[in-house]
Amino acid sequence: MAEMEWKTAVAGQIGAETVIRGYPLTELIGSVSFAEAIFLVLKGETPTEREKKLLEATLVAVIEHGIAPPSIVAARMVLSGGNSINSAVAAGALTLGDFHGGAIEMLAKILQESLTPDVDNVRSLAKRIVHEFKEKNQRVPGFGHKLYKRDPRALKLIQIARDLGFKGKYIDFALAIQDELEADSKGKPLPLNVDGVTAAIMSEMGIHWRNGTGLFIIGRIPGVVAHVVEEKMREKPFRRLPEGSHKYDGKPIRHLTEKK
Amino acid sequence: MAEMEWKTAVAGQIGAETVIRGYPLTELIGSVSFAEAIFLVLKGETPTEREKKLLEATLVAVIEHGIAPPSIVAARMVLSGGNSINSAVAAGALTLGDFHGGAIEMLAKILQESLTPDVDNVRSLAKRIVHEFKEKNQRVPGFGHKLYKRDPRALKLIQIARDLGFKGKYIDFALAIQDELEADSKGKPLPLNVDGVTAAIMSEMGIHWRNGTGLFIIGRIPGVVAHVVEEKMREKPFRRLPEGSHKYDGKPIRHLTEKK
Amino acid sequence: MAEMEWKTAVAGQIGAETVIRGYPLTELIGSVSFAEAIFLVLKGETPTEREKKLLEATLVAVIEHGIAPPSIVAARMVLSGGNSINSAVAAGALTLGDFHGGAIEMLAKILQESLTPDVDNVRSLAKRIVHEFKEKNQRVPGFGHKLYKRDPRALKLIQIARDLGFKGKYIDFALAIQDELEADSKGKPLPLNVDGVTAAIMSEMGIHWRNGTGLFIIGRIPGVVAHVVEEKMREKPFRRLPEGSHKYDGKPIRHLTEKK
Amino acid sequence: MAEMEWKTAVAGQIGAETVIRGYPLTELIGSVSFAEAIFLVLKGETPTEREKKLLEATLVAVIEHGIAPPSIVAARMVLSGGNSINSAVAAGALTLGDFHGGAIEMLAKILQESLTPDVDNVRSLAKRIVHEFKEKNQRVPGFGHKLYKRDPRALKLIQIARDLGFKGKYIDFALAIQDELEADSKGKPLPLNVDGVTAAIMSEMGIHWRNGTGLFIIGRIPGVVAHVVEEKMREKPFRRLPEGSHKYDGKPIRHLTEKK
Repeated sequence: MAEMEWKTAVAGQIGAETVIRGYPLTELIGSVSFAEAIFLVLKGETPTEREKKLLEATLVAVIEHGIAPPSIVAARMVLSGGNSINSAVAAGALTLGDFHGGAIEMLAKILQESLTPDVDNVRSLAKRIVHEFKEKNQRVPGFGHKLYKRDPRALKLIQIARDLGFKGKYIDFALAIQDELEADSKGKPLPLNVDGVTAAIMSEMGIHWRNGTGLFIIGRIPGVVAHVVEEKMREKPFRRLPEGSHKYDGKPIRHLTEKK
Repeated sequence: MAEMEWKTAVAGQIGAETVIRGYPLTELIGSVSFAEAIFLVLKGETPTEREKKLLEATLVAVIEHGIAPPSIVAARMVLSGGNSINSAVAAGALTLGDFHGGAIEMLAKILQESLTPDVDNVRSLAKRIVHEFKEKNQRVPGFGHKLYKRDPRALKLIQIARDLGFKGKYIDFALAIQDELEADSKGKPLPLNVDGVTAAIMSEMGIHWRNGTGLFIIGRIPGVVAHVVEEKMREKPFRRLPEGSHKYDGKPIRHLTEKK
Repeated sequence: MAEMEWKTAVAGQIGAETVIRGYPLTELIGSVSFAEAIFLVLKGETPTEREKKLLEATLVAVIEHGIAPPSIVAARMVLSGGNSINSAVAAGALTLGDFHGGAIEMLAKILQESLTPDVDNVRSLAKRIVHEFKEKNQRVPGFGHKLYKRDPRALKLIQIARDLGFKGKYIDFALAIQDELEADSKGKPLPLNVDGVTAAIMSEMGIHWRNGTGLFIIGRIPGVVAHVVEEKMREKPFRRLPEGSHKYDGKPIRHLTEKK
Repeated sequence: MAEMEWKTAVAGQIGAETVIRGYPLTELIGSVSFAEAIFLVLKGETPTEREKKLLEATLVAVIEHGIAPPSIVAARMVLSGGNSINSAVAAGALTLGDFHGGAIEMLAKILQESLTPDVDNVRSLAKRIVHEFKEKNQRVPGFGHKLYKRDPRALKLIQIARDLGFKGKYIDFALAIQDELEADSKGKPLPLNVDGVTAAIMSEMGIHWRNGTGLFIIGRIPGVVAHVVEEKMREKPFRRLPEGSHKYDGKPIRHLTEKK
């Protein structure tokens, strides 16, 4: 029966051995770093030395960004209602949607599907992509930042990728899109942001765009855990919105008896 | 107003700089490994070289264990209903409760609260702990395995900790509990398992027991991501339990009209 | 500051009174049925007598459908990992996506956006909708059933709506789509199913299509609760996929040392 | 194999008929109200006329309470991150823990386990319960309110139960606990609140205390749905905590190079 079959190529038993993508788990423990194991689990192969370094840097870049984002507020609210650590962390993961890390997967899809081996001019390709989005009246995901003209995390990651000797065709492509967007934005900066650069970098490492959101979740969850544990150890339960920060603006008072 | 105050010591802005536990984020990117950043985020300080190596090994040890555990089934079911990657991963995190990784936090609490600096005999302390649980008719968390007489992942992690020169008082304490349990079990093996050894190891590294579940979630999420992406790319939607694997065993058929 | 403003027209305080859509809560308690209160909360007005009856029937129609659907399996898996009732119920809600109740919202959107007041021929409109989906190579949501030529729950709800004197233009429109689909399906039945009829019925009652998924969640959650409580009271913890029902089909065994 | 067996007494197929607790689903549609179906699903039997009325009133009493509670904030935050309606509703359910509706189940357990048929004096039983909690230095769940000396929702539900002719021994027991608590509180009101009265009422109706949290979730979910749909239709995405409402109070700025 088709539905009975639960098949996986990620991990399982071969004889008495638990293997991950073919490698015995006990052999991996102590031999590879956590980031290397993440690469193996997602891509199916261990990374090269420079892929390892670039992935470590990328995961560090997204690990934490303060208490203000909706994912942290949602996670702390769940804890505050009197729930378990894992429930609260799950609420953090639930929040990481289209507007909260989702640009990684969306841009990685564009980069990987457009930049076929035969393309040799990323600039004209970038022009086409920007034009297509403009036609559809949509924003290209992965560009723009509230505070920065250039996102320092993105600049740092690009520098690391260059120093490690990556070819950088996806990075060049992403930067060409940035240039096209800014040529059309009347002086408004639309920098490749940390989501956008993550999309380019995972493409450089040959990680399929479908892993974009997952990569961001993996990177961000430690930060969520730290916040949730802090909420548990430092705050009183049951956070409500404070008086004065919210209001009812619906129907004025009325009564069931007024209806005939 | 108390409720308005959202305070955190995890990360935030100092001037124009985003800092994590005081360190500028851009300084961390490329300088520390992902596991080091996890240590920093959770404990508030960067690890020593041997703490780093032990944490890498510990996170690798829990990253994946095949398709059969309830967390993976729940995550794949959510994806299968036509939902986003992050929703499905959240369902995986939701499943990691008292019987699925929860032993880490429970045992770490026992280890850290009982093993005060004045204790010099872990054996008599272990005897007392085992006795107390027996009195309450409860199982000590972190021991026992369906398949193994000794859990190979636990043995490997203990070896690594010893080789790295950790003092090992929490490991010794946990092993003493194992011996006490087995002295009382009529030959049934009750080995320190991978959850149990994680509890001992995080205690060796001075990580507060409240982070136990969080540490397991951080380690396991990459595996959940890999399964969810595989489900998305390889399976048809809407998995139902197959015919023949489930049955209704409730009230026989009856009718509302039979009631007077 | 825009972000500080938490505004709602659903419920709040007017003086000392808690109101829902303007009506004092204490006045509603004991005066309206649960389904009437649901209608009020979602649409902003209390239902007429026939709207009340139709909503009661619709919610009953989706309340439970056995243990096999992915939502129930996911919810029971979460409970089985050693988690709270509300976590497990949340996993059930998480599973109710595009392929599990999602057709309600998708079809309701189509019905409500196409059937403008000026349309007097639903048959030609249905023809156009079916044609458009065929062009895009997509299935019209809300039609088809694995077992039934006609879905008995749908037939029952349509009969009730007719008996209550609803005009039925959305029902007629949905049935016209069914006829168009079947005219083109070479004898394969493509009946309006329970999701599809719910879409038509909520449209008859003037409930905005955006509430489609919500309406299904409200109706189905009691069933999820019953399953989760049953799992808690009747089953042992930690359900794993049984041996023989799953397999690893990834890379054969290999070793890190094989890499040069 | 034990794990293969998915058994349920809630609902399933008998021949061609889908039954809920034995009753054919198509027979229930149009014959029972949604609240009656909820009673049937949870308890296994249809309610009497007065049980039906009391359950309708109880579910209406908890359906909504404004935008301020953590469940609503968490749900809106998840939606705001760019996620589906069902994910956001799930976050609401996740928040309904020990301090947010959890008192229902906790008090119902106490009421149902202490009030055995042989008890004829609820006052001395109440005295004993209050004494036991005081000894353990714990609060009895289900009593106290920030605003009210007496909770108007609780008073209304008690009145309805009395008017319907319920014996009221669980209500009397709960009120006796209230009196004992207040006799000991130096004038501070500790009224039976809406959670507490729900615990008493479900006990009057013979619903097992294990359904306490589930009952609250069923009642509250419609309110969560209304908020989430409102967030979708009325607000811009990505709510962050506003500047000035949060602060970093961790380690001052420091640098990796400062470590020797």
